[in-house]
Amino acid sequence: MKLNPSKIVDCTIRDGGLVNNWDFSVEFVQDLYKGLNEAGIEYMEIGYKNSPKLLKGAEAAGPWRFLDDDFLRTVIPQKGTTKLSALVDIGRVAEEDILPREESMLDLIRVACYIKDVDKALQLVQTFHDRGYETTINIMALSNVMENELLEAFELINESVVDVVYIVDSYGSLDYKDMLYLVDKFKTNLPNKRLGVHTHNNMQMAFSNTLVAAEHGVELLDASVYGMGRAAGNCPTELLVTHLKNTKYTLRPVLEIIDKHMIPLREKEEWGYIIPYMITGSLDEHPRSAMALRASDDKDNSVDFYDKLTTPEVSFDSSKGTK
Amino acid sequence: MKLNPSKIVDCTIRDGGLVNNWDFSVEFVQDLYKGLNEAGIEYMEIGYKNSPKLLKGAEAAGPWRFLDDDFLRTVIPQKGTTKLSALVDIGRVAEEDILPREESMLDLIRVACYIKDVDKALQLVQTFHDRGYETTINIMALSNVMENELLEAFELINESVVDVVYIVDSYGSLDYKDMLYLVDKFKTNLPNKRLGVHTHNNMQMAFSNTLVAAEHGVELLDASVYGMGRAAGNCPTELLVTHLKNTKYTLRPVLEIIDKHMIPLREKEEWGYIIPYMITGSLDEHPRSAMALRASDDKDNSVDFYDKLTTPEVSFDSSKGTK
Repeated sequence: MKLNPSKIVDCTIRDGGLVNNWDFSVEFVQDLYKGLNEAGIEYMEIGYKNSPKLLKGAEAAGPWRFLDDDFLRTVIPQKGTTKLSALVDIGRVAEEDILPREESMLDLIRVACYIKDVDKALQLVQTFHDRGYETTINIMALSNVMENELLEAFELINESVVDVVYIVDSYGSLDYKDMLYLVDKFKTNLPNKRLGVHTHNNMQMAFSNTLVAAEHGVELLDASVYGMGRAAGNCPTELLVTHLKNTKYTLRPVLEIIDKHMIPLREKEEWGYIIPYMITGSLDEHPRSAMALRASDDKDNSVDFYDKLTTPEVSFDSSKGTK
Repeated sequence: MKLNPSKIVDCTIRDGGLVNNWDFSVEFVQDLYKGLNEAGIEYMEIGYKNSPKLLKGAEAAGPWRFLDDDFLRTVIPQKGTTKLSALVDIGRVAEEDILPREESMLDLIRVACYIKDVDKALQLVQTFHDRGYETTINIMALSNVMENELLEAFELINESVVDVVYIVDSYGSLDYKDMLYLVDKFKTNLPNKRLGVHTHNNMQMAFSNTLVAAEHGVELLDASVYGMGRAAGNCPTELLVTHLKNTKYTLRPVLEIIDKHMIPLREKEEWGYIIPYMITGSLDEHPRSAMALRASDDKDNSVDFYDKLTTPEVSFDSSKGTK
């Protein structure tokens, strides 16, 4: 029996940090790393490798926002089989902070970008690749990208050294047919690249879309324990672990993390299927307007929120930022 | 442009009643009926048409457990375009309580049964059909049915007058490939019957599986507002309303119901993606053991629960009842 080629990239700390401003204790992260190892998960994305000097308000965030190798070594004195990953954003990473891989705790560096910055992202990828890291490029907000732009990006990607190219459903607006369409498009146009998928759960389709992608040859599957991630959250790690066939994953260590850490955390912090996030997902837009609503006193007034988003002549500040 | 043939059967009161023992106020049900009409939803399943004299402990349940036509007329003095449906269970319905359709508030009567009772279910269907109702047969727990039993049942169904045959994912254990398999099986073997689908959300696949079924010709789609239903709940009505293409549905009236009734109700009652229900779903079994756990003081101890369900030699009473 052929082993399932899927590899899970657990993003609990990185994407979940967008919920609690990376306020995870060292014990939390250590327990998570231990559990993911025991569960057989291939990658743990332990945070962002952005530089605090390139980001406003950096001092308020937890250490997982700006990973430092010396700090990481104290957190994880002994690495297991689960590799460590970090995400960087274009324009927020100081290249001089990136050690050669053999001196670093990190194995994989992923570059997130919008379609217009694919060229810049690939320059960063080249740098990380030259320093020995595995690399991915994660093109966000694909549901808002026109075909001609995507095809141009594919040309650049095909000429690059990047290992894995991600299909990212930033707004949680894709259904299985959209996912099948994108997987086919990426496979056809990037015949020599491996693929990854990152979903959001606004419409309760994060897990099912990830399954569809895996079934059609997408190899790296982003997930987070109990779905913790910005706004509606991500594909739940526990569902992939329990449902994917012909894998070596075990569910029990993930349940231990959920019982000990995620259930109490969910009492304090909010993510998941929440109606304003469903609305932004169904309208195929960024959740920032819904996040603003959820932080307000009017958080359960989804009718007014829906009216504002769907009435063209109404100006609704928090929904109008850059994408 | 061809209008989408899908028809939504909103089961909030009937399946949601399994959560709160049908303790919905008349105002709640009236608001729901008004909202479903405004949203363009075709059917509202307003409860069970079982007979209290055939069921123990009946006196404790709300009136939607044992629908009475005189009572229904006071609740809905003026019917809109949304038809009314009731579910009956084998052996719990007194045929003498069923009025001819022209004297009744109900339009559709659905018979739920396990595979071994398909013959009895079809006898009931014949009675309701003769009294003028639209009818469905809902074969529960299909994921636990062997092929030969199913094919025998199809023969009986093909000889019957039943209008619609349901694919029911009682345990929330099916993924999109299972759903495609069942839809194909039902279509091939029941060429002259219309199909319906009823899903549960244990693995966060209720909505996506319903979409897959709809896309492949299944016409009646069960759902409930905010997903309210036993244990992990159902496919959320709001997601079908907003996502199905070429329909006349409008989301706003469903949001009004959610804001006014479902958000406060969810504070008091529990349903949805909850880890013990995920576990029973992934193990393809009835959620009753998880429901017992959630009613206990140990409700968030999913590791012990998982150990009990997956250790063959451990006897675990609440998981051993009849299916």
